[in-house]
Amino acid sequence: MSPRLAIGIDLGGTNIKGAVVSSNGIILDRLEQPTDAARGPGPVMDDLADMVRRLQQRPPIPHERKGTVETNESNKFVGIGLATPGPLDLHAGRINHAANLPGWKDVRIRDSLREKTGLPVTLENDGNAAAYGEYRYGAGVGHDDLVMLTLGTGVGGGVILNGEIIHGHFDNAAELGHMIVVVDGFPCPCGQRGCLEQYASAGAIVRRVLSVDPGRKRMGADDLRAEDIITAALNGDPLCYQVWDEACQFLAVACINIQHAYNPSKIILGGGMSNAGAQLLDRVNAHFSSQAWSLHNDVPMIVLAKLGKDAGVVGCAALAFASR
Amino acid sequence: MSPRLAIGIDLGGTNIKGAVVSSNGIILDRLEQPTDAARGPGPVMDDLADMVRRLQQRPPIPHERKGTVETNESNKFVGIGLATPGPLDLHAGRINHAANLPGWKDVRIRDSLREKTGLPVTLENDGNAAAYGEYRYGAGVGHDDLVMLTLGTGVGGGVILNGEIIHGHFDNAAELGHMIVVVDGFPCPCGQRGCLEQYASAGAIVRRVLSVDPGRKRMGADDLRAEDIITAALNGDPLCYQVWDEACQFLAVACINIQHAYNPSKIILGGGMSNAGAQLLDRVNAHFSSQAWSLHNDVPMIVLAKLGKDAGVVGCAALAFASR
Repeated sequence: MSPRLAIGIDLGGTNIKGAVVSSNGIILDRLEQPTDAARGPGPVMDDLADMVRRLQQRPPIPHERKGTVETNESNKFVGIGLATPGPLDLHAGRINHAANLPGWKDVRIRDSLREKTGLPVTLENDGNAAAYGEYRYGAGVGHDDLVMLTLGTGVGGGVILNGEIIHGHFDNAAELGHMIVVVDGFPCPCGQRGCLEQYASAGAIVRRVLSVDPGRKRMGADDLRAEDIITAALNGDPLCYQVWDEACQFLAVACINIQHAYNPSKIILGGGMSNAGAQLLDRVNAHFSSQAWSLHNDVPMIVLAKLGKDAGVVGCAALAFASR
Repeated sequence: MSPRLAIGIDLGGTNIKGAVVSSNGIILDRLEQPTDAARGPGPVMDDLADMVRRLQQRPPIPHERKGTVETNESNKFVGIGLATPGPLDLHAGRINHAANLPGWKDVRIRDSLREKTGLPVTLENDGNAAAYGEYRYGAGVGHDDLVMLTLGTGVGGGVILNGEIIHGHFDNAAELGHMIVVVDGFPCPCGQRGCLEQYASAGAIVRRVLSVDPGRKRMGADDLRAEDIITAALNGDPLCYQVWDEACQFLAVACINIQHAYNPSKIILGGGMSNAGAQLLDRVNAHFSSQAWSLHNDVPMIVLAKLGKDAGVVGCAALAFASR
């Protein structure tokens, strides 16, 4: 008997990713295309439905990973998992407004996609979906209490307690990038000052280096990227080292606050900045050890994500399975 | 038919409080005595069992609040709710060690009290028990997602999500007094620096005033107390005003971080410092409004606790009902 299949769709500000995912978390097929969000919700939602149809109709192919050959027979789809930027109203199936989708406001995306495709749709915030993906099939397997930080342009979060995503009253829990780590600190587009994502995201370390030395705008052929800063830091560049080390210190403080808030057994670091691998993990762990409390031995493991950019599609597909 | 009854016991570093509580949250009888924790766990646990027996045996009395007369008939007790300082191991029913109970380590208090009394015992961290009490019978009724901060000598916390206390993997979630609000800030006995409770507890504001002006050690007949500082602040004393206002600002930052972490509909401020009432609430709300994000309308109500010092006994009695 074939395992059940779901379609995961990850709607981002830049790209839409889609995948056929088996109930054991294996991606059998995938598609990706630009979002072009400036067109507005209507055309983008048409694109989502079209991507679902293409994923349903593509011929059965062997899956990408080890194991037996599985196929995406279209009659086996239990539904669609849809991950989008927040804030969302999960009850209404609505994107209230999203920083990464300019001009989108009160978009009833769940019902629209259900009507266009005829499949049940499970909507989830993208940070939560990625956390759930890592929980079910990635770095968090077996850890019913875990927190994921997604370190990209900003910092996203997702929290699993007792095996369930926490949402809170307004469906907007785990917005961990907007934890204030410096009172009256750097301004954040969200309206606050001193948010974690102004100190410890890929975007933040680029901004911080450029604010001190605008001449670094280009390193080599490309615009300055977080990975260039990390490489320069490790090669002894004092400014890059200071910014990188401070980012890791703020991440460690965030992990301590996460420890006391949720008491998870694992904190998973994902997103583009986690490509720094051990360079990130070792520095965060060193700062964590030197700053954390000694009162109780409730130290979470801090680890790297395993699913990379697939966490969103795999996670929301897993939610589609869980809700059937 | 009489409502069911439970016994709530709140073991603190200074006093043991006990109460007979009805299933609608009304205290029918109460006892209080010094803990004298330095005697060690054995004699204190004997005292707890003795207090339970006295509460069971006292003659039926009318309850303290409005409503029909109810009695504490001893055959009606569903069990004991026991609130203690943490960190706890809830599975083992054990106090791992507690800052307020010097020398206590790995004390299997739940089974001890069950064996001595013959009643089932539900153990809970005192911060969580207080939050649950406010949720079931106090300022949080109807709010399934809420957070309580207990502002006393230190700062305690308790978090309810979907009507349940969150515990995390190590049973030590919601240690919100040890949220770091100032990186490399004031040292905390827990081993960290910059913990919330070093800025925004009754103990902290006394320490901070005395560190600037040791001459204030005595104001009037007594040692300097938090309430003296608050009164002086409102009467225009610049040092007291600065320390008090800063405490309120840090509390507002904590409330913002709580908003993003758990997205509750309500944050309840309790503990001795909440006796300042509107003086506390108005300043915290003013700082919250000026510092919180404008991205989404997910603002929790910040309110004062209603149960005062009874929150612990009422809350753990409520847990005894809930676990039967």
